[in-house]
Amino acid sequence: MTRDDIFNQIKIKESFLCVGLDTDIHKIPAHLLKTDDPIFEFNKCIIDATVDYCIAYKPNLAFYEAMGPSGLESLEKTVEYIPDDLFVIADAKRGDIGNTSAMYAKAFFERMEFDAVTVSPYMGHDSILPFFEYNGKWVIVLALTSNAGSSDFQHLDIAGDHEDFFDIEEMELFEIVIKKCITWGTPDNLMFVVGATKPTYISQIRKLAKEHFFLVPGVGEQGGDLKEVAAYGMNDKCGLIVNSSRSIIYASNGNDFAVAALNAAKKLQEEMASLLQVHA
Amino acid sequence: MTRDDIFNQIKIKESFLCVGLDTDIHKIPAHLLKTDDPIFEFNKCIIDATVDYCIAYKPNLAFYEAMGPSGLESLEKTVEYIPDDLFVIADAKRGDIGNTSAMYAKAFFERMEFDAVTVSPYMGHDSILPFFEYNGKWVIVLALTSNAGSSDFQHLDIAGDHEDFFDIEEMELFEIVIKKCITWGTPDNLMFVVGATKPTYISQIRKLAKEHFFLVPGVGEQGGDLKEVAAYGMNDKCGLIVNSSRSIIYASNGNDFAVAALNAAKKLQEEMASLLQVHA
Repeated sequence: MTRDDIFNQIKIKESFLCVGLDTDIHKIPAHLLKTDDPIFEFNKCIIDATVDYCIAYKPNLAFYEAMGPSGLESLEKTVEYIPDDLFVIADAKRGDIGNTSAMYAKAFFERMEFDAVTVSPYMGHDSILPFFEYNGKWVIVLALTSNAGSSDFQHLDIAGDHEDFFDIEEMELFEIVIKKCITWGTPDNLMFVVGATKPTYISQIRKLAKEHFFLVPGVGEQGGDLKEVAAYGMNDKCGLIVNSSRSIIYASNGNDFAVAALNAAKKLQEEMASLLQVHA
Repeated sequence: MTRDDIFNQIKIKESFLCVGLDTDIHKIPAHLLKTDDPIFEFNKCIIDATVDYCIAYKPNLAFYEAMGPSGLESLEKTVEYIPDDLFVIADAKRGDIGNTSAMYAKAFFERMEFDAVTVSPYMGHDSILPFFEYNGKWVIVLALTSNAGSSDFQHLDIAGDHEDFFDIEEMELFEIVIKKCITWGTPDNLMFVVGATKPTYISQIRKLAKEHFFLVPGVGEQGGDLKEVAAYGMNDKCGLIVNSSRSIIYASNGNDFAVAALNAAKKLQEEMASLLQVHA
């Protein structure tokens, strides 16, 4: 999927919403547990309910791996069920030595037909480059995450002036990550995870990566504010994919869960439509 | 498994060898492809051949995920097949926000009965702490890896004096990772990945983490030297688990692959036996 394909979807749907499919067998409505594949049935209902209001889906691998081989089957069926014009992200946060990252790329881009995979940068270039080998596929590198632990390492000040490599003197780790990754990929195959918990950081990161899409978690359940995210982060091709998981998929745990998910997604889509008019 | 259990195995086997089960369907002997589960059959033969010469096995998840649900089945059967007194590591390099890392912990420690999982530190404490919730299980944090990309971020100099938190002034990122992680776990549930490509770093890291076990990749196929690793890294409970993958499991790709693996593992075990006599 190209950057223009994604932007076209955003214009058609008037939405830059990603629905996170963090499907937990212990949280889905009881009546689904009687079906052959409750995880897939739940996802199918959620997708049917939200597909008009979002442009992307993001299953988190942890939730499927916790179910063993049958969890991976539910995941494969889910990815297959999502219409082709939506962007499908494997939230996997992988990263390993070159030949092993190549196997992960194979798992997500060949075996399953994801459009993108999230990658942790700690192991450096050869852990990321194999994912770029697939035309039309995307790497989404963790830059600044939205969790409490993001302050442990991502905000460390990096010593030395970085003018040999960059044109900035003082940098934190997440900024170095962005600056280096930009030299390995392009705005057409590389995005960054940028948490929404401190929206001013989004404008700081936008200066480093003007054209790249940001995948923004943390709106809703983790306290981020959608208006601020748009104000600080939007570029002329939107440049934002904002994820919401629990506040949509678990909007209700009763028989009305799909309607509740539809309403939660629709509400976000409407807010996004007006933000797109203001900023894009 | 306790630290003493691991050390006892090391003394009994006179070995601190871990065999990496990076099993690739395209690299295993042709005659196994006719069996129902070639990946498991290969692993079973490798385990039977090497079990007397090693104390740990380390399947890398990427190789199993690339095969889809059946790959996970092969993995589960493999973990089940390994005798209980050996240490079994899920080389997964996971790490996500707290509730998601908890799902990964569930996948590796409840669903499958791994003794340890490798974790990437980029997302900080709440991405690592959930793995410590399991008694007798281990977290192995990536500190200094053995790949080319390790220099991109792990060796960055961190600015400021770190005396408020540590007692050292100048530190690189991998040292901060070690110093912080040591405050989250103990030598009885926390190990570090320490690459063998530059053994002098191992002695530098040993000063920071005197009692912790190090999982050392990069001996053999990636150019590390076993004698130097032992000289720089061994402590009074050995403190080292040295991994070898390809040079053992792909020692031959013919019908004699198991014998070749046995010989490769035995050769390393004999070298390790004499190093244990010198240093431990």
